[in-house]
Amino acid sequence: MIRYPGGSSPKPKNEKVVNKPRVLSSANRGMNLEEDINISNQYYIDKDIAVITKRPTPINVVKVDYSRGAIITNAYFEKQSTTDYNGVYRGKYLDFEAKSTKLRTSFPLSNITLHQIQHLKRVLKHGGIAFFVIRFEAFGETFLLDASFVIEAFKGEKRKSIPYHDVKRNGHLIKESYIPRLFYLEVIDSVYF
Amino acid sequence: MIRYPGGSSPKPKNEKVVNKPRVLSSANRGMNLEEDINISNQYYIDKDIAVITKRPTPINVVKVDYSRGAIITNAYFEKQSTTDYNGVYRGKYLDFEAKSTKLRTSFPLSNITLHQIQHLKRVLKHGGIAFFVIRFEAFGETFLLDASFVIEAFKGEKRKSIPYHDVKRNGHLIKESYIPRLFYLEVIDSVYF
Repeated sequence: MIRYPGGSSPKPKNEKVVNKPRVLSSANRGMNLEEDINISNQYYIDKDIAVITKRPTPINVVKVDYSRGAIITNAYFEKQSTTDYNGVYRGKYLDFEAKSTKLRTSFPLSNITLHQIQHLKRVLKHGGIAFFVIRFEAFGETFLLDASFVIEAFKGEKRKSIPYHDVKRNGHLIKESYIPRLFYLEVIDSVYF
Repeated sequence: MIRYPGGSSPKPKNEKVVNKPRVLSSANRGMNLEEDINISNQYYIDKDIAVITKRPTPINVVKVDYSRGAIITNAYFEKQSTTDYNGVYRGKYLDFEAKSTKLRTSFPLSNITLHQIQHLKRVLKHGGIAFFVIRFEAFGETFLLDASFVIEAFKGEKRKSIPYHDVKRNGHLIKESYIPRLFYLEVIDSVYF
């Protein structure tokens, strides 16, 4: 069980982080989106708010040495054919992929696979909530963007990325704090419920 | 894309399999519950009925050899702290664990972890559908049992298993066929909708 510091106040939208008396600066936090989401998910589980978990990275195991107690000695990483996270919140199915970029002008679609797009389309079709969590590291901003926008952008043959301003306009800025790192369920509340 | 044979007729409940002109006998099918579920899930995805996927086995990677193109040379299996399967069907979140047993008298709880029980409790609390798929290999019978029964049985200190007759009485026999191997969404339809 993680101990959560009490009274952590989320920073207001678009506020610049200057001389804030916090343990973790926004700059530090921004370094690892996956860790931020995992910590937020653990908070949501411990506080009995939602059950959202990370799918383990799929690994193809080639060889296992049982003489040393099942040590994997030969294996390789496989591409995730679905998304990184899914779970249940307020009775609804949630499914999302998290990506961060160092770029300032756009969110590149190059490391999103067709399988992931197809998976998210299906989730939407069957009544789930599907979205992307997109962090622009240069600005320390993290957005929640409905999967439909990314699915649409993925269609255009020449469109290899989504401009920053489109993410900002169609997405929703996620408030950040110490714990949970990312208040993304607040956005879910206001956008989907 | 898998090609599905047309007109596969599910076998009636409790029917003994004798001289049936099918490619796969019930005895053969029964050997691998996980494979049967994976094939059923792929059918449900391809037929646009549901999106239910297997969580990859969590593996702790200790050492990777990048000189040979990211070959994992030292790693070990970790215990699944959640369940094997989850997804979305008719707008609802589904979460389940599949187990088969060679025993004839009871379903042993020994290889279900406290973490899994806690996870399923949370899923139920947040409005998800949580259950077990339990196969008795000796009888070639596979049941869908709501997680609440297993959670309850897990409470009793002396109760290390659930008697076969309790699984049969409280659970629901899943029809089997060639494709999908297990008609478990039919049971979901009748029990939860």
